[in-house]
Amino acid sequence: MVKRGMLIVLSGPSGVGKGTVRKALFNEPDVDFQYSISMTTRKPRDGEKNGVDYFFVSKEEFEEKIKNGEMLEYAKYVDNYYGTPLEYVNQTLDSGRDVFLEIEVNGAMQVRANSPEGVFVFLTPPDLLELRNRLIGRGTDEMDVINKRIHTAVGEIKMMRNYDYAVLNDKVENAVTNIKNIVRSERLKVTRVMPDYLSMLGDED
Amino acid sequence: MVKRGMLIVLSGPSGVGKGTVRKALFNEPDVDFQYSISMTTRKPRDGEKNGVDYFFVSKEEFEEKIKNGEMLEYAKYVDNYYGTPLEYVNQTLDSGRDVFLEIEVNGAMQVRANSPEGVFVFLTPPDLLELRNRLIGRGTDEMDVINKRIHTAVGEIKMMRNYDYAVLNDKVENAVTNIKNIVRSERLKVTRVMPDYLSMLGDED
Repeated sequence: MVKRGMLIVLSGPSGVGKGTVRKALFNEPDVDFQYSISMTTRKPRDGEKNGVDYFFVSKEEFEEKIKNGEMLEYAKYVDNYYGTPLEYVNQTLDSGRDVFLEIEVNGAMQVRANSPEGVFVFLTPPDLLELRNRLIGRGTDEMDVINKRIHTAVGEIKMMRNYDYAVLNDKVENAVTNIKNIVRSERLKVTRVMPDYLSMLGDED
Repeated sequence: MVKRGMLIVLSGPSGVGKGTVRKALFNEPDVDFQYSISMTTRKPRDGEKNGVDYFFVSKEEFEEKIKNGEMLEYAKYVDNYYGTPLEYVNQTLDSGRDVFLEIEVNGAMQVRANSPEGVFVFLTPPDLLELRNRLIGRGTDEMDVINKRIHTAVGEIKMMRNYDYAVLNDKVENAVTNIKNIVRSERLKVTRVMPDYLSMLGDED
């Protein structure tokens, strides 16, 4: 029996740079996990290819998939659906390959509910680190703006709660290195490898 | 307030090469955690230095420390005590530095009981991987020897249960790289970093 792959989920607040980090990650020569392409009902933009950037489908097809329980997670933004088809993810995991999803926070929480054994990585906005300095360095006339931004930031950070790791997106290459390290060390988790060792020795306990 | 450091414990079956891996690890230029030197009542061997290889103390001193609850863990082998003094570990953790212990499995379980938030790494003997091949490749006249070795191996692997990670000691440099990766990604655990982010933003919830 092939050992089932590991599900890796990258998520984070809107605008944090998830797509940029994901693209840089998959440009690395030693990345050996599979990117799961999302499905959407929005029209392809210039240069976007079906089956590369997204699977582009009609609203009817997408809603049919939701109805049949064929989406691992999905959401609707401004009249368009975005989501992850379940079949591809399951087939890839069953073949023993690790699968990587880059999705919005609501979607990540749907995946967490169904696949708690996955590895959930939260990408943290770099400008949070500068907020405190700005607070100190600037005049009081901007306090309203600052307080609003702080409030948003606290809300974003609290989204971390349901993730395993927080990776700061200060530089794309740092985030990529950290995500690669996380995947490598998750593969060494005793809960993942002990059954392999025991079955190798002929002990199924 | 300084954030308390992380406790990293390297352990594994007797003879697996823990000491060799630990020495190679601390020869790396980028290792920034602190090795906690063990205490023992055995006599120094040629070239061993007090405060470098071990803290060498008398049996009476060691037993006094046990009595006063000043040992994080300890064991007795062939009439000699070996253990980890609690004070040094706590002072270093309180200063914000991560502390690395290289200890026997019984000691590691004592530490796990007291410090469940530590990172526990089990070093796995490389020859386990060859056992199955040997089983297939050799004649039945050696079955008794092989079965005994398998039995021991299964027992060793089952020790993994109470650890977080299993690192195969196939090559010392691989084990060192994996341990460094584990420490790096453990530092990104949400449970460890979320309080920092929130307190940075002035939110103590």
